[in-house]
Amino acid sequence: MLELKHLPISSFSENIAYIHRECPIYKLDNIKSMTRIEIHGGQTPVYAFLQIVDSSKIIRPDELGLNTEAFRQMGLAEGSKVSLTLTPPAPSMSSVRRKISGNILSDKEYAEIVSDIESRRYSNMDIASFLVAIGSFTTPNELLALTEALRGDRIIDWGSEEIVADHCCLGEIPGNKVDLILTAIVAAYGLPIPKTVSCVSNGLSSFADTMKIFAGTDLDVRSLKKQVLEKRGAIVELDSLEIAAADKLISTVEQQNGLSTLERAVTSILATKAAAGISHLLIDIPVGPRAKVKNTQEAMRLRKLIEYIGDMMELNVDVVITDGSEPIGNGIGAVLEARDIMKVLTNKEDAPEDLKEKALFLAGRILEFDPKLRGGQGYVVAKELLRSGKAFDAMEQIIKSQGKTKEQAQLGHLTRDIVADVDGEVKKIDNMFISRLSVLCGSGQYPGAGIDLVKKTGDKVTAGDILYRIYSCNSNDFAFAGTVLENGKNGFDIS
Amino acid sequence: MLELKHLPISSFSENIAYIHRECPIYKLDNIKSMTRIEIHGGQTPVYAFLQIVDSSKIIRPDELGLNTEAFRQMGLAEGSKVSLTLTPPAPSMSSVRRKISGNILSDKEYAEIVSDIESRRYSNMDIASFLVAIGSFTTPNELLALTEALRGDRIIDWGSEEIVADHCCLGEIPGNKVDLILTAIVAAYGLPIPKTVSCVSNGLSSFADTMKIFAGTDLDVRSLKKQVLEKRGAIVELDSLEIAAADKLISTVEQQNGLSTLERAVTSILATKAAAGISHLLIDIPVGPRAKVKNTQEAMRLRKLIEYIGDMMELNVDVVITDGSEPIGNGIGAVLEARDIMKVLTNKEDAPEDLKEKALFLAGRILEFDPKLRGGQGYVVAKELLRSGKAFDAMEQIIKSQGKTKEQAQLGHLTRDIVADVDGEVKKIDNMFISRLSVLCGSGQYPGAGIDLVKKTGDKVTAGDILYRIYSCNSNDFAFAGTVLENGKNGFDIS
Repeated sequence: MLELKHLPISSFSENIAYIHRECPIYKLDNIKSMTRIEIHGGQTPVYAFLQIVDSSKIIRPDELGLNTEAFRQMGLAEGSKVSLTLTPPAPSMSSVRRKISGNILSDKEYAEIVSDIESRRYSNMDIASFLVAIGSFTTPNELLALTEALRGDRIIDWGSEEIVADHCCLGEIPGNKVDLILTAIVAAYGLPIPKTVSCVSNGLSSFADTMKIFAGTDLDVRSLKKQVLEKRGAIVELDSLEIAAADKLISTVEQQNGLSTLERAVTSILATKAAAGISHLLIDIPVGPRAKVKNTQEAMRLRKLIEYIGDMMELNVDVVITDGSEPIGNGIGAVLEARDIMKVLTNKEDAPEDLKEKALFLAGRILEFDPKLRGGQGYVVAKELLRSGKAFDAMEQIIKSQGKTKEQAQLGHLTRDIVADVDGEVKKIDNMFISRLSVLCGSGQYPGAGIDLVKKTGDKVTAGDILYRIYSCNSNDFAFAGTVLENGKNGFDIS
Repeated sequence: MLELKHLPISSFSENIAYIHRECPIYKLDNIKSMTRIEIHGGQTPVYAFLQIVDSSKIIRPDELGLNTEAFRQMGLAEGSKVSLTLTPPAPSMSSVRRKISGNILSDKEYAEIVSDIESRRYSNMDIASFLVAIGSFTTPNELLALTEALRGDRIIDWGSEEIVADHCCLGEIPGNKVDLILTAIVAAYGLPIPKTVSCVSNGLSSFADTMKIFAGTDLDVRSLKKQVLEKRGAIVELDSLEIAAADKLISTVEQQNGLSTLERAVTSILATKAAAGISHLLIDIPVGPRAKVKNTQEAMRLRKLIEYIGDMMELNVDVVITDGSEPIGNGIGAVLEARDIMKVLTNKEDAPEDLKEKALFLAGRILEFDPKLRGGQGYVVAKELLRSGKAFDAMEQIIKSQGKTKEQAQLGHLTRDIVADVDGEVKKIDNMFISRLSVLCGSGQYPGAGIDLVKKTGDKVTAGDILYRIYSCNSNDFAFAGTVLENGKNGFDIS
């Protein structure tokens, strides 16, 4: 038996166990690659991957070290006696092999894979193998089976509420932070909307990061329910709710290797929203040559898939296809987006019109989930809730309930203005270029980093006019962002 | 700038960097998944994956910790000043995505992928993604491009030697340690044979483990060349030769996720043997219902592939298809195999006949690479070299040159006899069952662990006769091995 020790190292997803090379119990000389072990002594065995330590300052030969993730799962105090055995790859890896060979997997096989992922028997490379295997060819029934498995049994129960609404965007567009505005409008109307941020991210800041400018976002299930039943709305991070755990682990891998497919994004969205107990879901698919979904044909294929899975899972879904040809609003990055959102909610004259209109359109569609509302009235009702300040009041209530942020985040102190080099009209703004630039300047890490678009499509410009301003909080990021601008490209098409 | 610190932790393959959560320079609050970084300050940037530390006992906030693999690559002393930037996935991951979508990749794309793997820009999950992507469909030309890229530019130069021979087995059979015997015979004949152990393993002990019972196996390129030019033979581990580095990293991932394909094994064998400067290569494909290659049709397909790649790389390959229906020799595990090998080399009466015959057959084929030898004479010459004791002498020379092992490894002290439960004749022995049992009883970890087959196919047995004996060095392994025997199966078909 070895003594349990917590090594406070976070790997973000994998369970890692540390053993001293001179461990008297387990001979490690012959281990040449990452080795799977099973640790006994707790309530259930914990799976982990072994790393070898050559210093007694980190771990003694009679100790077994666990990283933060594994130690938490073990549920024992430091110093507890534990034993370990080598363990083969998860049994469901044979299904992954079958999928690689081009087979169609059964519902049971998907359930087993997801269960093995949840108990952390899959390493990141196993998860990546699974993702690539399902990435080449998967039937709608397989995607349904995967979605149901990912949703799991732990579903938030909203009691007597007949409609619990939410919205999600498939394929993020820079600056598209309609989420906070539409939540405020829907909550002001009185439909419960527990807005959860989807796991699928791409390095951009999420609307949870924007919400953090105003309030905390880490509610547990109990606080979430209490708040939504009282205030009708909430904006929370999925991480704080213990639902759809396997989906989070898969998303972590996807964020790293960039191999996520749109089909997989559909399973992630539907699984997490279903686990959150959503009954009515609006899904927005922005389409554009530089968006994730390139054309309406692809969007239509995804709509059919979403509708099929939604129907089979008894989830009421409404899919809208919107214009994703360019960034929405002016600000990209949490602080700048928070500014745009507040302009819209307080009916400021310089509020970005495109952001406001998109929020009203989507909020209107959600309001029409209500059978009491006459068809086609959603937009008008949403507009009135915004104009009258009721949406703003609802947002204030939500912010207060979630805990108002004490310290105001500041815009990055390193700035650079990108100016037009010719006279003309802005014909196009390249989404992908702006996304990439906003990631590089640090907007995923620092709330104050981002891009402020001064000009939008249709604006007339004269050479020397500022097109946009970059904000960074860190000189590394600032220099990094500068490198993509050096070859004369700036993402604007002016002629 | 941060101060460099070596954290003596081995992950076996990935470069890991450790940063304290309170690091004053890099803000880590928003990092939610494993993050790729690029570390500057050394001769070339080193790529690593970030983990977060919450204890100053492990790493101070002003330090950057590197695990053993990354620290070695950094090539700087502890305390050196280094900086870091976040870095996107390796550029060649776009080719992996293209492969996942069913495209045929170019030679240049394979070269770029292998180069990025070698510089450790691929995480294990990236490598797994690549493996799965090439696992479903790859053309012979793509496999050739991959093999050439894996071989790399660092090729051992054997000067004026016209023939440098080696042998490799595609799909290991338990106990099949002909390698040491045939090396001794070929060296005794005078053909240079620098035998390297292939990277592709399956948890069984390798012939390098068996060789370690007699002598050291970690020669560098210089010592290897000196020894082979003088003694004509060597048996070394690839790890100690700095060749085909990317292949080692890929094999490490394959050993873990068990997703290797036979095509990928072909690229690994040909790339490493070509990098070792081999001019003439004998490849043995054992075929059997419980071997890796199930039938002659599959073996023939692989033979054609090997011949095609070999020809294009100007490697002289001879492919033989052999009987892989059951274990070869009596012992499985390093100590027991070493015993069998010495019995054959010293012409003992109880030497396992099948092991001896297979070694002679293969050695004969290698000898016939020599143009001076008359066709069909190889086997006879090999038999005479063995009978006369010249092969034994050559082995003694090789052992002496590689450094005779001082302490004799002992057989495991935990033993269990598996006895026949009926009278009859042994009709079949199940390779896969015996392989699995030998892995479970610890033969991959401990040289003294293994299985000693007392009965072989064709032997008459009476109920109660010992079929085989299991040896373990560790009570965990011993118990683990016992579990597969509990349901009445023992791998023997007696009737």
